[in-house]
Amino acid sequence: MVSATNPASIDRSTVERIVRQVALEYLGRDSQSKAPELVVQTSSRHMHVCREDMDVLFGPGTELTFDRPLFQEGNFAAKEMVTIVGPRSRIISNLRILGPMRKQSQVELAFTDAIMLGFNDLPVRLSGNIKGTPGAVIIGPKGVVELKEGVIRAAIHAHMNPAEAAYFGVKQGDMMKLRIGGPSSVTFNNVHVRIDATSRLNVHMDTDEANACGLHLTKDVELFK
Amino acid sequence: MVSATNPASIDRSTVERIVRQVALEYLGRDSQSKAPELVVQTSSRHMHVCREDMDVLFGPGTELTFDRPLFQEGNFAAKEMVTIVGPRSRIISNLRILGPMRKQSQVELAFTDAIMLGFNDLPVRLSGNIKGTPGAVIIGPKGVVELKEGVIRAAIHAHMNPAEAAYFGVKQGDMMKLRIGGPSSVTFNNVHVRIDATSRLNVHMDTDEANACGLHLTKDVELFK
Repeated sequence: MVSATNPASIDRSTVERIVRQVALEYLGRDSQSKAPELVVQTSSRHMHVCREDMDVLFGPGTELTFDRPLFQEGNFAAKEMVTIVGPRSRIISNLRILGPMRKQSQVELAFTDAIMLGFNDLPVRLSGNIKGTPGAVIIGPKGVVELKEGVIRAAIHAHMNPAEAAYFGVKQGDMMKLRIGGPSSVTFNNVHVRIDATSRLNVHMDTDEANACGLHLTKDVELFK
Repeated sequence: MVSATNPASIDRSTVERIVRQVALEYLGRDSQSKAPELVVQTSSRHMHVCREDMDVLFGPGTELTFDRPLFQEGNFAAKEMVTIVGPRSRIISNLRILGPMRKQSQVELAFTDAIMLGFNDLPVRLSGNIKGTPGAVIIGPKGVVELKEGVIRAAIHAHMNPAEAAYFGVKQGDMMKLRIGGPSSVTFNNVHVRIDATSRLNVHMDTDEANACGLHLTKDVELFK
């Protein structure tokens, strides 16, 4: 798309986004005492694909098929799945793809998955930060892609909007703590803060983290600085 | 064995045990300032077998074969392995048996293993406390045992001797915290204290817990009340 030179032609979604952000920041200042509802979710191993890899894995011009919505607006689990082949020549099949498509393909594994596949020192990274990470062979129904990099363990992180960040008194890139109660109570000490205007307060942890703390056994969760 | 009525006949090993315990408690009081070395270890899924189940699984009168020693004196990984069949009719093969034999058979799984097998609400228990826990079918090279109970997720725990307990100021059954540093830093809030005269300070966690905190990525470990 060619960018418009007339400032009056700024597109509708951009206007909506700016208005929402300003409104949320205003609400944030006005509601310091009301705790936002905290949703903690488990993110199982999955893949994000770029257009070029989608073409190879599922066929030129194919699109991801919506299966079910994820908590963050616009994100969804796709019906498409692939197989990943690790350095020990072991595989994990039925690796789910999450949409929408991204600029770079990326695979997010728990350490349990990674060690089984032979990635013994998988880097712990925020999504999108894949420079220097290991690659893998990915097999789709229509073709095979050799990723040069992009296999990570996703760092535990909290999505929030500016109003929610204001409530906690945190800024982009800060670290928070998340305490999970119950019989296997655990406190995660390095929860990365990710602020976006369209986000809803939501911590994502992987299956190792969820199973370590027995997330399915308790509703006692607390996010704090 | 018939118990002796003559108090002079108290057996040698009991005397040794009492002497060791008193000596260790004395040492504990005398060395409050010296921190004992903390060894944190990952305990992969495994089984303990009783004499009766050993007979069925590996043949009447068979013994466990020593493969390698474990950190706690007298405990060892055996060469013998079995297959466990879970409620979803999925299996885990090569489930290692740890020796020596015990009074009751018991299987210790991580939640990741348990959920895969179909145990969705596996109880979190200290070893030996298996009343009311689920059972499973166990397949050995010579026969099949149907455990009525004994499948657990082992609660994270710290073995220590009385001197080490004195150093930390804790008693049998207390809870401590264990902080693991590094990029995926985690604090385990419910570490059960298990005191025995012959123990060496040693925290046991399962593979989910070790993979959640990236235990292989750091040497920064701290046990505290």
